[in-house]
Amino acid sequence: MTIPAGAPFAALETPAALVDLDRLERNLTGMAAYASGHRLVLRPHIKTHKATAIAAAQLAHGAAGLTVATPAEARVMSTVGRDLLLAYPAVGPKLARLMALPGDVRLTVALDSARAVEELAAAARAAGRPVRVYVELDVGMHRVGVTAWDEAIALARLVAARAPLEYAGIAFYPGHIREAEGSQEAKLAALSTALGGAIEAVSRAGFAPGVVSGGSTPTVWHTHEIAGVTEFRPGTYVYNDRTTAEIGACAWDDCAFSVLATVVSTSVPGQAVIDAGAKALGREPMRGAEGEGWGALLDRPEVVVSRMSEEHGILDLSRTDWRPEVGEQVRVVPNHVCIVVHLNDVMYGVRDGAVANSWPVDARGRTQPAVAAGSAA
Amino acid sequence: MTIPAGAPFAALETPAALVDLDRLERNLTGMAAYASGHRLVLRPHIKTHKATAIAAAQLAHGAAGLTVATPAEARVMSTVGRDLLLAYPAVGPKLARLMALPGDVRLTVALDSARAVEELAAAARAAGRPVRVYVELDVGMHRVGVTAWDEAIALARLVAARAPLEYAGIAFYPGHIREAEGSQEAKLAALSTALGGAIEAVSRAGFAPGVVSGGSTPTVWHTHEIAGVTEFRPGTYVYNDRTTAEIGACAWDDCAFSVLATVVSTSVPGQAVIDAGAKALGREPMRGAEGEGWGALLDRPEVVVSRMSEEHGILDLSRTDWRPEVGEQVRVVPNHVCIVVHLNDVMYGVRDGAVANSWPVDARGRTQPAVAAGSAA
Repeated sequence: MTIPAGAPFAALETPAALVDLDRLERNLTGMAAYASGHRLVLRPHIKTHKATAIAAAQLAHGAAGLTVATPAEARVMSTVGRDLLLAYPAVGPKLARLMALPGDVRLTVALDSARAVEELAAAARAAGRPVRVYVELDVGMHRVGVTAWDEAIALARLVAARAPLEYAGIAFYPGHIREAEGSQEAKLAALSTALGGAIEAVSRAGFAPGVVSGGSTPTVWHTHEIAGVTEFRPGTYVYNDRTTAEIGACAWDDCAFSVLATVVSTSVPGQAVIDAGAKALGREPMRGAEGEGWGALLDRPEVVVSRMSEEHGILDLSRTDWRPEVGEQVRVVPNHVCIVVHLNDVMYGVRDGAVANSWPVDARGRTQPAVAAGSAA
Repeated sequence: MTIPAGAPFAALETPAALVDLDRLERNLTGMAAYASGHRLVLRPHIKTHKATAIAAAQLAHGAAGLTVATPAEARVMSTVGRDLLLAYPAVGPKLARLMALPGDVRLTVALDSARAVEELAAAARAAGRPVRVYVELDVGMHRVGVTAWDEAIALARLVAARAPLEYAGIAFYPGHIREAEGSQEAKLAALSTALGGAIEAVSRAGFAPGVVSGGSTPTVWHTHEIAGVTEFRPGTYVYNDRTTAEIGACAWDDCAFSVLATVVSTSVPGQAVIDAGAKALGREPMRGAEGEGWGALLDRPEVVVSRMSEEHGILDLSRTDWRPEVGEQVRVVPNHVCIVVHLNDVMYGVRDGAVANSWPVDARGRTQPAVAAGSAA
């Protein structure tokens, strides 16, 4: 069964994930122009869209390569990209899948431990494949990354001694910058100082980084102001979301993604219930915006999803005179799009109020193997 | 590629969803015994496991039928069950999929609006298929359901006048009972009173309910104490989770489900980072347990996932002397299992520390149609 191109939204079974194709194109073009204007290497993170169709569009717009978070994503993306960064330390069974990537894929891995270096080196040697390595630094988020530059030097040295691994540079993710104190200018200056110290330290030890890979969504349009950065890995910009708009990294009109939902009940006064709950919208809070719900209507941002069950979203009608009827469709901009895309198998491209095309979220699943000769309980 | 039965957990690429088969069997048996002991019709909700393999096991253990939340789930479950309740008001394109169910499926729909009755009646007439209807009541949760019993009577009357629809009874979901004030006994008594009033009102109007379908996880083992209930729809009991244990509806040792994860970084002191974040664990809070994180280790419940990114979970090591190494595997019991299962395509059945079998989460996706002749942006 298929849906004809040009069908109205009403033809879609809800909840359904919609992407405004004109906004998507504008977002792709804008980021590519920013990157080339500042001579930054654009290596977008595919975690947001998880679709080869969108990755191909990013590459066509001038991305130098792709960033992925898992070997399963790398495998899928290797069908469209030949230069992949796994921005995640791979250990254990993940390495087998990584080494099975096509031989002509230029592979880079970011890591932060000697154990990860040794496991990767052993796998790369056994597979006879060169692997580039970024040493991951913690510049303040305290998630992953080495916290002392001596450790960074020690890891770079270990990598250099473990052919076919190749030390290629350093990576960082300043995910803390949104919560940090001070003005944006002050935060960027502090980041430049921290990063500059790291670059100087590793360079002095003989490990000048060929690549300095970093950046984050709150500062994405200021990446060129972080001294030393040569490459950045934006993800959210293709679709954007309520959080991206709230922190000023995009305008509301740049939100290309929404969840189409249907009003299914209006029996309780003051609210309307839609068929998009936590299994369609995720449950990601608007950080720093207490009580602001789980998503807002694209065309009525004053109407928020105030409560959710798994398949129910409660629209709070207290700030609107609008009273929807059962059967009416609405479009919800979620708080965090990457989580929502991960819940879907199909994206519908829309233009001029109609369904134009669709594409699979083909890197969504973890594509795990079955157990041989197994039967369920 | 497959994994041999009997393989150690270390053979699995993480994160991976594990189900302890012995605990699963015990949970299935226990609920079936409770239902038959109290002469309650057991119609489990498949939203928790979304797998025909588990639904078949529930039916084999004496379930009279299955409950689903979406037509897509109904379609998949119709391959194993012949008596399906859609506990959700279907309007719009959902009805086409519903009417396409095999003709020998006994179908019931719960709804709360005249609009839903009229749409369902039109679809049922066109398809020539009888559909049983439960009128949904709001007994205090304020999500869906009619709030005045006059409205319930009006809906029952409308259904009775719209053959091939058949008025079959009433349904309710007391999801508010956890937050309600007072002792469990008092809450159950209040619920019995509210429900009793509704049953009396509709009966007096000539719509005595053949079925009274209700119950919720916090009161699941006390369903027989709610006066009038004939059928219940438990979901979580097959796997259980941290919340179910916290509210006393199961013991910690009844938690059959866990997410296997690998420690990928220990570079930041006081914590260990695992490869299960919000895309593997969901972000469902422990209601009423502020700061208790997003999951706890099965074998060390004092260790919680205190922070998450999409693919990173931060284990807080402040309450343990245990210091894991990179590469070590752990098992996380999530706060809310239904959301986590929805993130997975494969479940691994485990027994005696080894992987025994696997089954697909075959009702996970919404199985939405592609757009004809479409191409991505």
